[in-house]
Amino acid sequence: MAQKADITAAVLVIGDEILSGRTKDANSGYIADYLAAIGVDLREVRVIGDVEPEIVAAVNALRARYDYVFTTGGIGPTHDDITADAIARAFGVGISEDPRAIALLLEKIKPEDLNEARRRMARVPHGAELVENDISKAPGFWIGNVIVMAGVPAIMKAMLDRVGPKLCKGLKVVARAILADNIPEGAYAAGLSDVARANPALSIGSYPSFRDGGFRNEIVVRGKDADQVGAAAVAIEALLASLREGEAGRQRAQMKSRQ
Amino acid sequence: MAQKADITAAVLVIGDEILSGRTKDANSGYIADYLAAIGVDLREVRVIGDVEPEIVAAVNALRARYDYVFTTGGIGPTHDDITADAIARAFGVGISEDPRAIALLLEKIKPEDLNEARRRMARVPHGAELVENDISKAPGFWIGNVIVMAGVPAIMKAMLDRVGPKLCKGLKVVARAILADNIPEGAYAAGLSDVARANPALSIGSYPSFRDGGFRNEIVVRGKDADQVGAAAVAIEALLASLREGEAGRQRAQMKSRQ
Repeated sequence: MAQKADITAAVLVIGDEILSGRTKDANSGYIADYLAAIGVDLREVRVIGDVEPEIVAAVNALRARYDYVFTTGGIGPTHDDITADAIARAFGVGISEDPRAIALLLEKIKPEDLNEARRRMARVPHGAELVENDISKAPGFWIGNVIVMAGVPAIMKAMLDRVGPKLCKGLKVVARAILADNIPEGAYAAGLSDVARANPALSIGSYPSFRDGGFRNEIVVRGKDADQVGAAAVAIEALLASLREGEAGRQRAQMKSRQ
Repeated sequence: MAQKADITAAVLVIGDEILSGRTKDANSGYIADYLAAIGVDLREVRVIGDVEPEIVAAVNALRARYDYVFTTGGIGPTHDDITADAIARAFGVGISEDPRAIALLLEKIKPEDLNEARRRMARVPHGAELVENDISKAPGFWIGNVIVMAGVPAIMKAMLDRVGPKLCKGLKVVARAILADNIPEGAYAAGLSDVARANPALSIGSYPSFRDGGFRNEIVVRGKDADQVGAAAVAIEALLASLREGEAGRQRAQMKSRQ
């Protein structure tokens, strides 16, 4: 498969339970890691409720903009599972029971237990390919550039594993993390800004975290050219070393002046 | 303060580090819980990168649509902290160093250490109110219906605590969770759909989770009228009891036919 430098993606998390705070979304973080590892750039995540016009609008906005859109949630058998119908509406195609999906369900469900609600899980927009999973057997699907997956994390992961090998991959992002412990952001910000300006193709971020009453700062350099990333990391290490040296010098001078 | 039934909100998480998977966003889940507890309906979450036009577009889309927009991330001293400038652009107002913010920074930073990078943290769009925090002293701000907070969770929480008492509150959502363990979703879906149809003002969801090789289903009823929520919960309990009873009857019949 030909390689494009940038393959972009968005994740659309569908579910009232995330917005109410009751369920904490871990799927988008998992998908972020997964896509980073195969060279697909995640550019946006949205979380919306189980509201059809909202789903239709978000799917259409995102699929026009990114190479792939991954949705999670809303493909089960209950009345609040409206994702499949919303996707069909977004694409302006019909939706009906898919015999391939019924066959999958029958691998897990006895024919006499395949009631109307369970048959809902076999409703697939016309023109979609199924995305199987071995846990529940109820499939997700792939239509256009939109990949529709379950919300239950174990099932979503199983579906992503089926889809992953078929995705177009871009150049992988190489990342280098540099710990700037004990040097405050405000001390290295100007020098870091110079390195960032000299490397417009790289993404250079400074990430403070606060723990045990103090800040821990990490600088991360990301980019698709490993040599460039490495050179920028060396420049940042040198910047931090000179700041540490300057600080040590200041302390020595203070000690001396007290003697 | 007068009470409206629905006060709506969106969260905008700003940061490349979330999209790359390197940092897992916990702020939006925390804000979801916080808002639910005070009767503000979180309707949407977006995560976008450190890209000014993206921030401007998202802020303007969300602030036109919801009563409040909470942003997290991008207000530190380094070159990748561009949120304050993007917000000023979104509102079409100027931005400059705010003497109130400088005064706050000087409570923590020695005057000789207040370099250009650190002064960046005092850049505030014109017309904004400051949102203080005691941890870093670097303030967030509140402009129009947009509340701009730090990305470091401890600081974001401190800022949210300052803002919370000033927010308009709606009627709180009452939630009742009913465990449907051992009853598959497909068995109760039809009955649950009937309860949902009879209660259009309520949000009734069915949430399977998969653990230890089996599903655990929970049904959650949410709404602003506690009596209505309670009555729907009773109806769902009765539905589940009748399904359990039917299953027990079937098992007894099977036992008998084997004797």
